[in-house]
Amino acid sequence: MKIAVDAMGSDHYPRPDVEGAVAAAGMYGVEVILVGDEARIHTVLEPLKATGRSIRVVHAPEMLTMDDKGLALALKAKRKEPRTSMAVGIDLVKHGEAQAFVTAGNTGAAVATAYFRIGTMAGVERPALAPVFPTRTGTCVVLDIGANPDCKPENLVQFAVMGAVYAERVRGVKHPRVALLSNGEEAGKGNTLVRETHKQLLTSGLNYLGNVEPKELMAGRADVVLTDGFTGNILLKASEAVASLIFETVRDKIQSASALAKLGGLLVRPTLRSVAQLLNPSEEGAAPLLGIDGLVFIGHGRSDALAIQNAVRVAKLAVEADVLNSIRAEIGHRLPSRA
Amino acid sequence: MKIAVDAMGSDHYPRPDVEGAVAAAGMYGVEVILVGDEARIHTVLEPLKATGRSIRVVHAPEMLTMDDKGLALALKAKRKEPRTSMAVGIDLVKHGEAQAFVTAGNTGAAVATAYFRIGTMAGVERPALAPVFPTRTGTCVVLDIGANPDCKPENLVQFAVMGAVYAERVRGVKHPRVALLSNGEEAGKGNTLVRETHKQLLTSGLNYLGNVEPKELMAGRADVVLTDGFTGNILLKASEAVASLIFETVRDKIQSASALAKLGGLLVRPTLRSVAQLLNPSEEGAAPLLGIDGLVFIGHGRSDALAIQNAVRVAKLAVEADVLNSIRAEIGHRLPSRA
Repeated sequence: MKIAVDAMGSDHYPRPDVEGAVAAAGMYGVEVILVGDEARIHTVLEPLKATGRSIRVVHAPEMLTMDDKGLALALKAKRKEPRTSMAVGIDLVKHGEAQAFVTAGNTGAAVATAYFRIGTMAGVERPALAPVFPTRTGTCVVLDIGANPDCKPENLVQFAVMGAVYAERVRGVKHPRVALLSNGEEAGKGNTLVRETHKQLLTSGLNYLGNVEPKELMAGRADVVLTDGFTGNILLKASEAVASLIFETVRDKIQSASALAKLGGLLVRPTLRSVAQLLNPSEEGAAPLLGIDGLVFIGHGRSDALAIQNAVRVAKLAVEADVLNSIRAEIGHRLPSRA
Repeated sequence: MKIAVDAMGSDHYPRPDVEGAVAAAGMYGVEVILVGDEARIHTVLEPLKATGRSIRVVHAPEMLTMDDKGLALALKAKRKEPRTSMAVGIDLVKHGEAQAFVTAGNTGAAVATAYFRIGTMAGVERPALAPVFPTRTGTCVVLDIGANPDCKPENLVQFAVMGAVYAERVRGVKHPRVALLSNGEEAGKGNTLVRETHKQLLTSGLNYLGNVEPKELMAGRADVVLTDGFTGNILLKASEAVASLIFETVRDKIQSASALAKLGGLLVRPTLRSVAQLLNPSEEGAAPLLGIDGLVFIGHGRSDALAIQNAVRVAKLAVEADVLNSIRAEIGHRLPSRA
């Protein structure tokens, strides 16, 4: 199995990207193709003495950054000859030379490059970014969290089918419980998008529970939660921001507290760390961009080597589970008029 | 000054509602009018021995509950003769017999009752529920967090003017910094609603900063943050849910940890409690429903007596600040074509 990894993706590229990819190659028995500036990749790669047959480097002379957006980004993404590390890596997937592509780069740039170079699969109009959220009892796949700020009910129904397949095949959840993120649990709650989508989901044949609020999501009441990319992004970022606010405030308060409280802080530090760890995106590594006719995983810009390594692990699981063909089949089966 | 309080509002009505109102009357020198089932109110009131001139009871034979919604709710809210505690209390404001109404009841029921019985002020199409969020550096007014799941750009511009007046007059913030909640800070980020609203806010004359993500909101970068009622509700509930998830997980982990970590947990408990307290809605008590042509405050169903007491305190501040006339004047000044 071959997994292409964007060496120029993370905020501190290429070190975390290359180190994580090398660790994954050693640990998960996959061949990793590092894509990016060859010279810079080798600077990190050589001291690791990892240039065996499981690591290859494919040169890409350019890279996309946080500054790439709008029309200029679309033009770069569409350019026939691939020059950016994302375009080169995604073309490897398109041409069957890699089974998946992993990047920790600009999410919008990765979505645009995947959308324009590979496109969506039959029956899927828009792709959805589908990360895993921690819950009280396990995890939950939430989609879309940022690929499409404006969605129609049809998009959310397609997300539902894709998310359910992903939860079942990759996360190992039998008959995944699908729910719609809303501002109230009762049917009839929600904005226009949620109310319309609710009606369509009732007849989708999925294991559809109805609406959930964030509280139920985090209590583990559903395995797949649907939302438009704008609300999903606010949900994700609010969750991260509140967690940071709490951990930073606790740390500050303990530091300025009595000697006894400081001692207490030292004693509970491993416990607090383990809770922070639960909410750490490094554990999952990256989220799949479902609906693209090829496997693309997008990680956080803050990804460290462990996050990249985990992203390759999750990509490998998705390849092994044949998730693309399963989604194609389910879309054809559940939404035949569209496929 | 007279403040009407819904005695039938909170989940555990009428005890927290009556006890909180009585405490507020004693502490803030206002006359409190308790509205609801007279017999039930007196059961709580009599042991408190508080029936002086600062507490009055106005009977309402019915109440609205979480089951009241949709068309049936609208019909009850519109009914000419006021029978529910919300309708009786809101009519006291409408007829000038109270300067504000406070309820911890069903938010949708309170919004509908206020909207149909008093209506919005000139130039304001939809009201907005505007609670205060804790931030690293203080607080931030966020609106709308639930009155209108679907908003137009014009609604958000009206919310901006109202939120800025409220922050300045009631929260004491000079030249409040106004921002738009979005999935990215750069102009051009956001869904269609955010992008259109951004254009209108640029020419509003307000101290408008542009977009903020939840991280910047919680870092204290803005004093007023605008969002539609659906996204705002998800933001609020996700924040509450993540905070609960963290505190419960920390508690569970400490309980099942080593004896030393348990000792540490005891020593840091006051610190953890003080952080949880920062995120506790009881501190603010209730959020104003801005845009209604009268002062209405809506608190959490879980409100305890302290929350009700604080809600009366905040309502008193709003009356003293003459916030209604200030909003009327600002709407007329900033959005003259609408007023």
